[in-house]
Amino acid sequence: VKREVTTDGGDSASRTAKYRFLLIQPFKLPEKSRFAVAASSGPKERQLVTYSHLANLLDDIDWDIHPGPPASHGDWPVENREEFALAAAARLPIVREACASGRYNAVVLLGGGEPGFDAAREIGKRHGVAVTANAWSQMHVACMLGNKFSVIDIAESHSMYYYSLIVAHGLAHRCASIRSIDYPFARPGHEDAPSLIGERRLLERGETSPGLERAVVQAIAAIEEDGAEVITLGCAATFWLRPHLETRLHEIGWDVPVLDGYSCSIAHAKLLVDLRQTVSGVTFPPDHPTRLRPRKPF
Amino acid sequence: VKREVTTDGGDSASRTAKYRFLLIQPFKLPEKSRFAVAASSGPKERQLVTYSHLANLLDDIDWDIHPGPPASHGDWPVENREEFALAAAARLPIVREACASGRYNAVVLLGGGEPGFDAAREIGKRHGVAVTANAWSQMHVACMLGNKFSVIDIAESHSMYYYSLIVAHGLAHRCASIRSIDYPFARPGHEDAPSLIGERRLLERGETSPGLERAVVQAIAAIEEDGAEVITLGCAATFWLRPHLETRLHEIGWDVPVLDGYSCSIAHAKLLVDLRQTVSGVTFPPDHPTRLRPRKPF
Amino acid sequence: VKREVTTDGGDSASRTAKYRFLLIQPFKLPEKSRFAVAASSGPKERQLVTYSHLANLLDDIDWDIHPGPPASHGDWPVENREEFALAAAARLPIVREACASGRYNAVVLLGGGEPGFDAAREIGKRHGVAVTANAWSQMHVACMLGNKFSVIDIAESHSMYYYSLIVAHGLAHRCASIRSIDYPFARPGHEDAPSLIGERRLLERGETSPGLERAVVQAIAAIEEDGAEVITLGCAATFWLRPHLETRLHEIGWDVPVLDGYSCSIAHAKLLVDLRQTVSGVTFPPDHPTRLRPRKPF
Amino acid sequence: VKREVTTDGGDSASRTAKYRFLLIQPFKLPEKSRFAVAASSGPKERQLVTYSHLANLLDDIDWDIHPGPPASHGDWPVENREEFALAAAARLPIVREACASGRYNAVVLLGGGEPGFDAAREIGKRHGVAVTANAWSQMHVACMLGNKFSVIDIAESHSMYYYSLIVAHGLAHRCASIRSIDYPFARPGHEDAPSLIGERRLLERGETSPGLERAVVQAIAAIEEDGAEVITLGCAATFWLRPHLETRLHEIGWDVPVLDGYSCSIAHAKLLVDLRQTVSGVTFPPDHPTRLRPRKPF
Amino acid sequence: VKREVTTDGGDSASRTAKYRFLLIQPFKLPEKSRFAVAASSGPKERQLVTYSHLANLLDDIDWDIHPGPPASHGDWPVENREEFALAAAARLPIVREACASGRYNAVVLLGGGEPGFDAAREIGKRHGVAVTANAWSQMHVACMLGNKFSVIDIAESHSMYYYSLIVAHGLAHRCASIRSIDYPFARPGHEDAPSLIGERRLLERGETSPGLERAVVQAIAAIEEDGAEVITLGCAATFWLRPHLETRLHEIGWDVPVLDGYSCSIAHAKLLVDLRQTVSGVTFPPDHPTRLRPRKPF
Amino acid sequence: VKREVTTDGGDSASRTAKYRFLLIQPFKLPEKSRFAVAASSGPKERQLVTYSHLANLLDDIDWDIHPGPPASHGDWPVENREEFALAAAARLPIVREACASGRYNAVVLLGGGEPGFDAAREIGKRHGVAVTANAWSQMHVACMLGNKFSVIDIAESHSMYYYSLIVAHGLAHRCASIRSIDYPFARPGHEDAPSLIGERRLLERGETSPGLERAVVQAIAAIEEDGAEVITLGCAATFWLRPHLETRLHEIGWDVPVLDGYSCSIAHAKLLVDLRQTVSGVTFPPDHPTRLRPRKPF
Repeated sequence: VKREVTTDGGDSASRTAKYRFLLIQPFKLPEKSRFAVAASSGPKERQLVTYSHLANLLDDIDWDIHPGPPASHGDWPVENREEFALAAAARLPIVREACASGRYNAVVLLGGGEPGFDAAREIGKRHGVAVTANAWSQMHVACMLGNKFSVIDIAESHSMYYYSLIVAHGLAHRCASIRSIDYPFARPGHEDAPSLIGERRLLERGETSPGLERAVVQAIAAIEEDGAEVITLGCAATFWLRPHLETRLHEIGWDVPVLDGYSCSIAHAKLLVDLRQTVSGVTFPPDHPTRLRPRKPF
Repeated sequence: VKREVTTDGGDSASRTAKYRFLLIQPFKLPEKSRFAVAASSGPKERQLVTYSHLANLLDDIDWDIHPGPPASHGDWPVENREEFALAAAARLPIVREACASGRYNAVVLLGGGEPGFDAAREIGKRHGVAVTANAWSQMHVACMLGNKFSVIDIAESHSMYYYSLIVAHGLAHRCASIRSIDYPFARPGHEDAPSLIGERRLLERGETSPGLERAVVQAIAAIEEDGAEVITLGCAATFWLRPHLETRLHEIGWDVPVLDGYSCSIAHAKLLVDLRQTVSGVTFPPDHPTRLRPRKPF
Repeated sequence: VKREVTTDGGDSASRTAKYRFLLIQPFKLPEKSRFAVAASSGPKERQLVTYSHLANLLDDIDWDIHPGPPASHGDWPVENREEFALAAAARLPIVREACASGRYNAVVLLGGGEPGFDAAREIGKRHGVAVTANAWSQMHVACMLGNKFSVIDIAESHSMYYYSLIVAHGLAHRCASIRSIDYPFARPGHEDAPSLIGERRLLERGETSPGLERAVVQAIAAIEEDGAEVITLGCAATFWLRPHLETRLHEIGWDVPVLDGYSCSIAHAKLLVDLRQTVSGVTFPPDHPTRLRPRKPF
Repeated sequence: VKREVTTDGGDSASRTAKYRFLLIQPFKLPEKSRFAVAASSGPKERQLVTYSHLANLLDDIDWDIHPGPPASHGDWPVENREEFALAAAARLPIVREACASGRYNAVVLLGGGEPGFDAAREIGKRHGVAVTANAWSQMHVACMLGNKFSVIDIAESHSMYYYSLIVAHGLAHRCASIRSIDYPFARPGHEDAPSLIGERRLLERGETSPGLERAVVQAIAAIEEDGAEVITLGCAATFWLRPHLETRLHEIGWDVPVLDGYSCSIAHAKLLVDLRQTVSGVTFPPDHPTRLRPRKPF
Repeated sequence: VKREVTTDGGDSASRTAKYRFLLIQPFKLPEKSRFAVAASSGPKERQLVTYSHLANLLDDIDWDIHPGPPASHGDWPVENREEFALAAAARLPIVREACASGRYNAVVLLGGGEPGFDAAREIGKRHGVAVTANAWSQMHVACMLGNKFSVIDIAESHSMYYYSLIVAHGLAHRCASIRSIDYPFARPGHEDAPSLIGERRLLERGETSPGLERAVVQAIAAIEEDGAEVITLGCAATFWLRPHLETRLHEIGWDVPVLDGYSCSIAHAKLLVDLRQTVSGVTFPPDHPTRLRPRKPF
Repeated sequence: VKREVTTDGGDSASRTAKYRFLLIQPFKLPEKSRFAVAASSGPKERQLVTYSHLANLLDDIDWDIHPGPPASHGDWPVENREEFALAAAARLPIVREACASGRYNAVVLLGGGEPGFDAAREIGKRHGVAVTANAWSQMHVACMLGNKFSVIDIAESHSMYYYSLIVAHGLAHRCASIRSIDYPFARPGHEDAPSLIGERRLLERGETSPGLERAVVQAIAAIEEDGAEVITLGCAATFWLRPHLETRLHEIGWDVPVLDGYSCSIAHAKLLVDLRQTVSGVTFPPDHPTRLRPRKPF
């Protein structure tokens, strides 16, 4: 596992930064997969698709990136519940090794659906390492900025999995809606599905991104019809839309925050390190604790 | 996988029963593990620890049992979030094969913490197979019998994982409390932890089971202090307590239902087969559905 | 009362079936009422309007049917709160006699608005007889199949009464909406109101049922606009729509469960008998119980 | 029915008071019943057990009292769900006649468990007559005075019925607890149960009322342990405790409002008449309304 | 302060009325302000813009009116959070003096956004004076009339402030929506904004009020789309619409209550005086109370 | 106002720090007040009572401190609702000037009861300045660390005001309880009330602090009885307890986070600056916005 971590070359002995983070991708597809969506090798900045938006946040962090566990379900991206459950388990040994290494004071789980988050927090607790994840961080930031948020997401299966994440985080009453822009990933049987990530290049070339246009439409509907006061982004494949979507909404008069998972989770990891907190040891107790609560009320 | 299924010898061609169920254990420990809690081979009845309480429910079912995937975390039982996440992923291929085999119209996931349940329901949906699990079934039956239920459970880590299951199922407001009887599983470093399952033999020999006594105390506290109107059982290691606990509570004047996961999940599987339902295809949509809901409100 | 029960001719001495159920209609109109909606005499199968859909569920049940108490409010169907309150009281002596007779292990209350359900459960508890009802059963099954359900119903007054049932069952947060197809019953002053039940024959003759068409429209709106993941049916007069509505929705791509009250309540009664449960004795205590809870928290 | 109304002798033609109320008891026991709890004939003031506490509220009201329908369940007071369902239906014709008579602009339903309230409101709406009831009024006043209220009540069966009323009124989250003082009514088989109402005379003679003492204990527990900020009274048999309980609590330093059903419902009836409101016609629609809402969201 | 109170000339010695109320405006603008919206001197009836609708409610009250504290934020009406916070503090000394004077048994805070309400209730409690306010009173009356209410309001900033009031009063789940008719007050930079209050004269002259027309449209949308069963009015500048809006809605078939803050708060003040209640002393405790609750649960 | 700000001597032209914060106290008492609780002049570090605990958080911030507005209610600390309402208004001009000055990118409102927070956020929004406050920040951090938190607070009046803050922030369901250690501030009539802040010196001298002992007792009760998984601190007078209380709880085996308002609000301000967010412009709209939402749903 260790060899897969893309670092700046520092080793633990010499690490003196206030923030020492490992960012872990949710899964790694075979390099030559026709369905690959992100680089899993090369300079760490290149492995982080929205690095250019994040440079400001990352500049005082000593950070490494791990490409994630090889996908066991197939050579296409994780999108439905089964695929998320497999990715969750596969990522945990990486979390465990990172936490045990002593190299990091926070682990940032990349990936909109945050596979393995709760188990990773449990592992992190045991090593004093904060762990953050992309759905959770966005939701919690969103609740600080307004009464209700809506999620812009890509596919029916992903959205209903995401729906259950929002319920599990106890924030259903703060979510106005999940809005879909209908960009399910290409996968066997649907090889020709258009790539939302690919449209990023269209924008950079000055062309129109249909995905962005749909996101604008859905975000406006979320604000005007569903009551959203903040927009968050579901699948990580949409995170690059953040500044573009925010600008577009501002241009038409909606002064609404648009969040993305990477920046929120990195910022949350800093906050937890600043406060010297990971999670409550009562919420994530050890296996044979010295103190018991006979009663856990709701 | 298939070879591990313990059957009555029937094959799919000859299967004509109304109910054709596969019961799947959550994990299998090495036969010689010092931490083993259940038989993973031999007659199917023997692999189901509380079979004697379930015979009535099972007698019109053509059922097989699968011992579950080999535990990858170690040779002790699954109890904390990390272990549950690993077991969840490991069980899915078994679910997938069972659903694809055409042999079953329902899969009953055994295990109090129901690892892999949501992903298994997604798989089941794609094959028209109902899937039930032990926390979910107990909660839903409990909500039919009274306003609030309390859970009797074994360990801090397991209970807080279970707490999150109740939240995820959207039933936190119906749960009065989780009450612990403090029987965490033996595991490395805690080899001498007493075995709750082992106490079953004490009872059968006419001796006292400390675990049962604690369960009586906690159930009474749940009723009198927390407002529980129904008692459910958390970890599957407690399921054998059901009739004993119910009798004891009735003897002291508390006419309160005590549920266990196995019977509730088997009964629920029958109900779903009777109604020809699995789950909603809107809640568990396919990867590239023909119909989209642009908006999923909360 | 006893003489009104339509049976198979067995008497209690010879009853050996696992399931021995009495189905009780909510009210009986005069045979010659111009507003009559169902047969209240003749073979038991004929008295159950959707028997053909239920045969599969009923085939291992030893069941009788009672035509319900004579309506005291008038000769038209029960639809508003006043009429439901009168029907509730009138049905209880039938429930009481059935429970006391020892002939049945479950009573299934027929009728979408389930008049008298809570009091009937109290009576059933005292005799060890399970009691189920049509709104309650549908809601609880729906919550097992998806996050939210919507109800297709017939009239404003009925729907607002039904609204209060959903609140009373503590499931308002799981109900997306009640959708009306505008088929209030004919009654004095509105003798010419069209009959939804009458349209069943239209369908059987290969003609179009306007009521079914409206139900399709409202169910689609419930799914696409309100967030329904499961469809339930309100007034019993709509229950016959179940297979037709489900088929129509599937044909247009909405793979959504459509439930009806009769099948859900019969299936629930089996489940309760299977689990040997009725209701909690703490929720439905006797008049002078031996055990008290000084405090009932919320 | 009309003849049973105890009036001041005015007839509708001469009625000019701003407030013209009919107070209706929930049930009438045979005069010679050994279980009788209240006078059902004689001067109207005598029929209202706590008249002396209410004189101030009633002095600008032109009020009559109706002794309620004869109890059909037996000759003991209404206390459990079955008895409440029977009383509910029996009271409606009285409500209907009162509303149709034109003599009253409000009907005040007496009785802690408010049998028939929702149906009575529906009837009242059709005649422009406000209807109030004792559980509902206390809860709504309590929510104006503090965050949470607790109910002091008499019996397990009554309290669990009352529990369902609180849920049905959508105020469960504002109720801290129901606290029981264990005074179930005498009834066949329990002829010697002590009478809480009888203890009123003890107090008047300067003796101690055990029921009051228990109410003090339970109210303190409600405040100190359950979080109650307001105390309400459940069964009407406890309403006379109001001033005594309030005084006792104030004496020991708890400056907490104690409410009773009669005064709150009378005051609410005045408020509704003052505001010229009964209930919403959307919530309580007519049978064949001119306006429809196809969608009733939750 | 005292000199600003417009009275009937009675002094406290001679006050014998059952209801002795002081109505306090939320702020007073300079007489010559181009943005003035109400008279702050002259006969008390003239200072109460909707007096003609309230005469019936006020006729048995010995009431005075106070023009409110001079606005410190500027010479335009209070509309946003900052302005409300300033007005809240400025009104408290008036409340304090009124309560201490012994002249009043209730204070009615005028103004839709009820600045200073909670602090005023605390002051009132200390003097045994009931305090009511316009958002709070409407919400509580609305919850008695139907399941859900919607608010008709004037401006984005006011509405989002009002949104937080509804949350703070714990009634968000009973509010369907806030609907805006887009009439923000004129203020520097927006001197030409049309005046909703000015349109009252249009109506009186038999002309059309665009504001009323928009209110009708939004109220219908609230009923048909949002699920409102009762309509309340947000900013006090809309209160005069009450009878006109109600009539219009009734004319088109929506038999829905329309409430306004003045009448509801006056009626609530009477109710509290009738019941001899102000607020709970547990909810609004003194600074050094004799009794403590170590635990305040939620 | 400006002259009261205690700075490091930098002026806006030279400010280049990433974080430029103004910390504002909630009120300033006369220097010679016998009830003074904190220094309001001198080096900025001295004005921040728990500076030694915060140095780590503050070291990369260019921060100033403002002593707060002079208290208008008297010369004792703010503790009840009336005093908080006065302090809220008095603080806003300071916030307004700070935001308009261009010197700061965040304002941190000091004070447990966060007077003026919502209005200050509105002001901040208009200038692009983030605003955080002590109750709000603790609650939001607590919700990230566990399911439920409890608040340790000083006085009945303060706690019930704080209770309303928790409701207003929409987080009542995440708060287990407020627990009081009974240290109301000295004030006229209660001049001899012990000073919790004064006990800090006791601890530093190696003596016992009764307040800390009570906080330990209440925190344990919160964990063991109320279900708290995280401890927060209410009144700012308790913030210095944070490390001591956390250590004590850890020593006895409760591995539970203890938060304080200063550190959480400073960390939150950094997070908001990092993410370039203040609040949603939809939640805090301008007075005459270009975009309207006719409907604000709940």
